[in-house]
Amino acid sequence: MELKEEIMRRAAAASLAADSLANTPTAVKNKALLAMAEALQKNKDEILFKNEIDVEAANEAGLNQALIDRLTLDESRIGSMVKGLQEVAELKDPVGEIISTSERPNRLKINKVRVPLGVLGIIYESRPNVTVDTAGLCLKSGNAVILRGGSEALNSNHILAKIISAAAYAAGISEGAIQFIETTDRQAVLEIVKLDKFIDVIIPRGGEELIRFIKEHSTIPVIAHGKGVCHTYVDLEADLKMAGEICFNAKVQRPGVCNAMETLLVHNGVAMEFLPQIAERFIQAKVELRGDDKARAILKGIKAATEEDWSTEYLDLILSVKVVDTYEEAVAHINKYGSRHSDAIVTSNKKRAEDFLKVVDSAAVYWNASTRFTDGGEFGMGAEIGISTQKMHARGPMGLPELCSYKYEIYGNGQVRK
Amino acid sequence: MELKEEIMRRAAAASLAADSLANTPTAVKNKALLAMAEALQKNKDEILFKNEIDVEAANEAGLNQALIDRLTLDESRIGSMVKGLQEVAELKDPVGEIISTSERPNRLKINKVRVPLGVLGIIYESRPNVTVDTAGLCLKSGNAVILRGGSEALNSNHILAKIISAAAYAAGISEGAIQFIETTDRQAVLEIVKLDKFIDVIIPRGGEELIRFIKEHSTIPVIAHGKGVCHTYVDLEADLKMAGEICFNAKVQRPGVCNAMETLLVHNGVAMEFLPQIAERFIQAKVELRGDDKARAILKGIKAATEEDWSTEYLDLILSVKVVDTYEEAVAHINKYGSRHSDAIVTSNKKRAEDFLKVVDSAAVYWNASTRFTDGGEFGMGAEIGISTQKMHARGPMGLPELCSYKYEIYGNGQVRK
Repeated sequence: MELKEEIMRRAAAASLAADSLANTPTAVKNKALLAMAEALQKNKDEILFKNEIDVEAANEAGLNQALIDRLTLDESRIGSMVKGLQEVAELKDPVGEIISTSERPNRLKINKVRVPLGVLGIIYESRPNVTVDTAGLCLKSGNAVILRGGSEALNSNHILAKIISAAAYAAGISEGAIQFIETTDRQAVLEIVKLDKFIDVIIPRGGEELIRFIKEHSTIPVIAHGKGVCHTYVDLEADLKMAGEICFNAKVQRPGVCNAMETLLVHNGVAMEFLPQIAERFIQAKVELRGDDKARAILKGIKAATEEDWSTEYLDLILSVKVVDTYEEAVAHINKYGSRHSDAIVTSNKKRAEDFLKVVDSAAVYWNASTRFTDGGEFGMGAEIGISTQKMHARGPMGLPELCSYKYEIYGNGQVRK
Repeated sequence: MELKEEIMRRAAAASLAADSLANTPTAVKNKALLAMAEALQKNKDEILFKNEIDVEAANEAGLNQALIDRLTLDESRIGSMVKGLQEVAELKDPVGEIISTSERPNRLKINKVRVPLGVLGIIYESRPNVTVDTAGLCLKSGNAVILRGGSEALNSNHILAKIISAAAYAAGISEGAIQFIETTDRQAVLEIVKLDKFIDVIIPRGGEELIRFIKEHSTIPVIAHGKGVCHTYVDLEADLKMAGEICFNAKVQRPGVCNAMETLLVHNGVAMEFLPQIAERFIQAKVELRGDDKARAILKGIKAATEEDWSTEYLDLILSVKVVDTYEEAVAHINKYGSRHSDAIVTSNKKRAEDFLKVVDSAAVYWNASTRFTDGGEFGMGAEIGISTQKMHARGPMGLPELCSYKYEIYGNGQVRK
């Protein structure tokens, strides 16, 4: 009961702060972002000290190495957060931008103007940098934020949130604009997602289970950042050298992220030539291959892919490989097993490529390029809060404008409706 | 159990149809819309016959007159549906429109392209014309639709859906693109809103209770079309003749709709002059006035407004009236009691008007015009599916582009990420 009241109190405070933050001048927001960066820099010893407590606890609890790596902060990672805030200060303020304007026959002038969403609830796991990155993006886009991080990073998140919210307040931002929920109680998530009176949007950043849980219980609109089961389809008419570079990049350059390739589809007309070449490179790079029967007939000795493999986001040096008889079979496979994140075709056939871009129902569809480009920075948006895999509101990388709504400002001189 | 399976079967069929509908040419969609219009015209006797069954049952059940009026069809109302479909055929196809385009330093060309949302679930009450209007807008925007109307209109909705879906299919639209759930079982709503595997967005059109119920149970994103508690604030510096026209229009021209005024706020510096004039016009127009103490001190004999009145959407010839001491008090009242739909200020003070447009957090904010203009047609969008009162995805009137999402189509020539 106490937890519930504490969360409600914080959400109400955020909602109050949101009203004033929506109309805070750009200069004040930028000053606050730079002050937050400076405060992190100045307090880095305390941050590292608190982070060590989390890391030690994680080691004692026997958490896996990948998780502990994501959890661990060092000077360079604090430096990245600082740089991130400074970069957000440089980005264009989306609030107040006139999206479109029109004058009606009755002389009413209608401006469609970008405004903040209001209060964002961010529920995330493990990486402490999310606390800082998210708070910066929310502040710049005029939104108040309620942060609820993973329990294993509680001490790190707590100190980061404390430092940046104090710095923002000192720089003239409304008190309460950055709220951090200090508890490891899972019940907290359940309380947050029911507060539709105060919170406008929930953005979960984490595994499938977390997203599913939130979608089921939230009475607030959710923007899901789901998994990326990304495909590259190497067509009969592909330039195989280019295909090799694209596939290798998509799988190996950074396997632990959502826009990395998880499944390679190859047309049977080129599989005999292409697969042995690329397999050799993959095996040298320590990529484990799992194939369907046709792929295994060419690549002797690789493991068989199970039905489950086709819809698995490995986030690791593992790749499932399937040989398809037709282009249509590749498209059907992607639309069936993919997660609608990022998918690519490699072909020199323009007509087929354009068809692929239309019929593959994913946030980002590529012709002759690596799926690794699905990213706010690479798209020219600046920093991103994540990559939406749903169709409502925002799809693909979400930058500052995607954290906004709009309103219609209408100028009249006495018009009434007939 | 049977109901659940039937609904799932229909949702799966809609999902399948959506894939092909997303890439159906504009000409085919327009041909289908005109065929649907023609089929309604041709079968009007059967429609009127089925509608009579609903109307008789409603009379027997003792439903109120306003509801029976909304339920009743006649030749002219069928004519409006026919005309509506023909008008939607004339509207620009939003699908495939390039929203923006950019070329990155690495020569990747990125097109942001409008695509359908996929499958829309529309849950609505009483008016049978919603069946036809909604199906037309969904089809034109490339979305499949699952319709679940109110039980009192079951026979009318059923025949309308049957006629238009058969006509659409005959004109070349995928079978299953227009699905109607033929049951009065309330459980059906609960089943529909859990099918996130097949349905992309739920749009409830109805009373507060329905919307609340859906928000609580849906695992699918919801676009709520909530109530309109709209205000007009008559400022100290208002042109009182203009204010009179605007207020009278906003309340009386069509009181039963969501953009009609429900609360009049008047600055105390002009209340003594303005209120008696406008009250006389309102009373002649049979508007019941309910005032706060200060309003009642000027308008003797009017009923007292209760706390509940300030947040009530009357949809009727009733108006609550409050005298405020300052502009700030008016804004605070609107942001506290309003429903973030449409609110207006009448003033000749430009600075105050511009402040009002910024700080009043509503979908449409007006300076010197009637709130009755919040409407897709009046905004130049063509037909609308409704007026969103939430901030996520779409706010205010929702036309065809608002029924869409987007994707990024990316053209490369071998780019890989460094």
